[in-house]
Amino acid sequence: MNIMQSAKAAKKASVYLAAVTPNSKNNALQLIARELHNNVALIKQANETDVERSRKENLPAPLLKRLVFDDAKINEVIAGIESLMTLPDPVGKTLLATRLDDALTLYKVSCPIGVIGVIFESRPDALVQISTLCLKSGNAILLKGGSEARETNKILAETIYNAGCKAGLPQQWLTLLETREDVSAMLKMDDYIDLIIPRGSNAFVKYIMDNSRIPVLGHAEGICHVYVDSDADMQMALKVVTDAKVQYVAVCNAAETLLVHNTIATTFLPLLKQELDKYNVAIVGCEQTQAIINVNPATDEDWKTEYLDYKLSIKVVADVDEAINHINTYGSRHTDSIVTANRETAKKFLDLVDSGNVFWNCSTRFSDGFRYGFGAEVGISTAKIHARGPVGLDGLVIYKYKLIGNGDIVADFVTGNRTFQHKIIDDNCPV
Amino acid sequence: MNIMQSAKAAKKASVYLAAVTPNSKNNALQLIARELHNNVALIKQANETDVERSRKENLPAPLLKRLVFDDAKINEVIAGIESLMTLPDPVGKTLLATRLDDALTLYKVSCPIGVIGVIFESRPDALVQISTLCLKSGNAILLKGGSEARETNKILAETIYNAGCKAGLPQQWLTLLETREDVSAMLKMDDYIDLIIPRGSNAFVKYIMDNSRIPVLGHAEGICHVYVDSDADMQMALKVVTDAKVQYVAVCNAAETLLVHNTIATTFLPLLKQELDKYNVAIVGCEQTQAIINVNPATDEDWKTEYLDYKLSIKVVADVDEAINHINTYGSRHTDSIVTANRETAKKFLDLVDSGNVFWNCSTRFSDGFRYGFGAEVGISTAKIHARGPVGLDGLVIYKYKLIGNGDIVADFVTGNRTFQHKIIDDNCPV
Repeated sequence: MNIMQSAKAAKKASVYLAAVTPNSKNNALQLIARELHNNVALIKQANETDVERSRKENLPAPLLKRLVFDDAKINEVIAGIESLMTLPDPVGKTLLATRLDDALTLYKVSCPIGVIGVIFESRPDALVQISTLCLKSGNAILLKGGSEARETNKILAETIYNAGCKAGLPQQWLTLLETREDVSAMLKMDDYIDLIIPRGSNAFVKYIMDNSRIPVLGHAEGICHVYVDSDADMQMALKVVTDAKVQYVAVCNAAETLLVHNTIATTFLPLLKQELDKYNVAIVGCEQTQAIINVNPATDEDWKTEYLDYKLSIKVVADVDEAINHINTYGSRHTDSIVTANRETAKKFLDLVDSGNVFWNCSTRFSDGFRYGFGAEVGISTAKIHARGPVGLDGLVIYKYKLIGNGDIVADFVTGNRTFQHKIIDDNCPV
Repeated sequence: MNIMQSAKAAKKASVYLAAVTPNSKNNALQLIARELHNNVALIKQANETDVERSRKENLPAPLLKRLVFDDAKINEVIAGIESLMTLPDPVGKTLLATRLDDALTLYKVSCPIGVIGVIFESRPDALVQISTLCLKSGNAILLKGGSEARETNKILAETIYNAGCKAGLPQQWLTLLETREDVSAMLKMDDYIDLIIPRGSNAFVKYIMDNSRIPVLGHAEGICHVYVDSDADMQMALKVVTDAKVQYVAVCNAAETLLVHNTIATTFLPLLKQELDKYNVAIVGCEQTQAIINVNPATDEDWKTEYLDYKLSIKVVADVDEAINHINTYGSRHTDSIVTANRETAKKFLDLVDSGNVFWNCSTRFSDGFRYGFGAEVGISTAKIHARGPVGLDGLVIYKYKLIGNGDIVADFVTGNRTFQHKIIDDNCPV
């Protein structure tokens, strides 16, 4: 099958997936978990082939680490599937019911989106997480993984697909795409693919966003900020900034820029530098920062840079408004946190910072689907529509309006024979 | 101000609009209604200028009719604003609250999208409806109306904008764009505009969708179907099909294609033809249809055509599956209706037809924000993400995650000092 045929087949499968019952989906998930368990030896063997080849090809160490899919990782994804089974089914929920008139009732009912195209790099666990989230939400999936993980992805996708089919899911509910050319082709197929979820480097995600008319859910960058207000508890601020910066530097929800109120900067910054020096964090700062601690100057480019490293840029600001303005100008709508004891200041920050995740007195590193209690996530969205922040099952469904009548016609309402009641009721959609 | 400055100013205004209280927004709406009332004479005078000029320029009669903004229309939009004031505020609703751990709580809170770009043709009432819906949902607005209505749009936008400012809304909360070049420029401003809502002809909406990276909410076409099943009540089917086709032909939710089950086609089609002949509906049909009633042949092009006229294409199908497949292949994901007494068949149709509005035993013409009880609509969306069907206030908001802690850091959870509770609670977000 070529990519066009695969996409058409996925579209066709998606129609039937929309009506698969919650039980059938959970049975499929259970069988998938079991078959992954049964195929452990094959999966590990395939992964060793990938790791060995990638090592020879000098894949950078951090990517090599993400590529490894060992017993621990396999058990983790199986546990993930089991926890996914316990989550309520996101499809078929009546979100609103309105009686338009006697025996004419409107129901807003959640349903799958259709066909999701997922493009991801190295980590094979992403394949399992994303495909099982798509299954639970009733979507068909076109998957393209990084070529460095090709053997692992192949056996994982085969195992998952076959188990799903055995459990009664429609043919072609999942397809693994094999070549880089498939990705370019996929980006053009807006007739068959309803949503693209890219996971990978900034450049990679930006390329996807720039080259497709299909809606894209994800984020290119995570330029996250912590703002330490004049009313901050100094010890709390030290703890939060340090965690946000150094707890794990290579991830999108790590802080890249610190904003600090000028009334406390002279006390706070020396304490912070002392703390960050323990982790060898390179600091660059604005002129005011440089007057307080001995650091290199920050350029305008620094405010726009996601370091993903032991590096922090610092700016002293006059008030919360300047902090908000800086974040809305240079940030990436990902995650931003304020440390303050002042409720009004916190409220202003949370309301006016235009990011998917806005935090008060806690570390930006909490911005994550698992930590939010979503079970898993397909990624973190910095879009302004559909879904923001960590995206779990809820971001993979949409709704349709079901109107149920008894031969009702609009002419009767236009002529005034009948009038709309528009009464919100508590019923679930009967079909 | 040029368009780039206007867009930047709108973005800035949108930040502050996000925190305007429900009361302030309703006060602004009240003042807008009052000022529209006070300016009736000016508005009618401007509209007469537009109508007169457009008549001289030979604007087609249906467009000329839409352009007229008389006392009745003004009273209608004022009544619309008053009803909008009674609707619950869509911003600041806590959609989900989860206790992550003691004193660390996650809130999913609704918020405005940001800056909405609205491009519409002729009807000046659309300007009032859309701008007040955007206001109530806390979004900044860039508006571009059809040039035939330029004087009417100008006085309406001025009245609305000034009343809003007088009521305390931030400067540049609404901007009327003047030239066609502004539209092309607007489509490129994805840094400042978060969503585009185009209202107008198919060609116009398609042009917008093809020429912007900004998400577009709307529909290019309404190719709506009625499927008359073997288990349909014949009289009900006649009534529904006739209403769906002829009650108002020039609108997107009118039916364009009838699908009819082959076991009842020989009885139903002659009755239907008799009925539709009263309205001079031109009928084209598949071979089976032609064997039953005397009509011209339908081509493949007919199944893809939105007539917006007294014309109907008819296809005889073998079963509900063929009907569903036809609709998913040729339809436009707008509105499709089944007439049947069989609950299972209806359920299958409603679940598998991939349209925003799926109806059982009623006319497609009900697909409308007013009829759904939304107060008003910005348009009908055939997208697969964010919002489908008639879009009211709910489609103009999104959400952000607010996480409130007490100095909480991720390191504590990673080391196992603390564990997540993930308990869904009933609280509203306190800030």
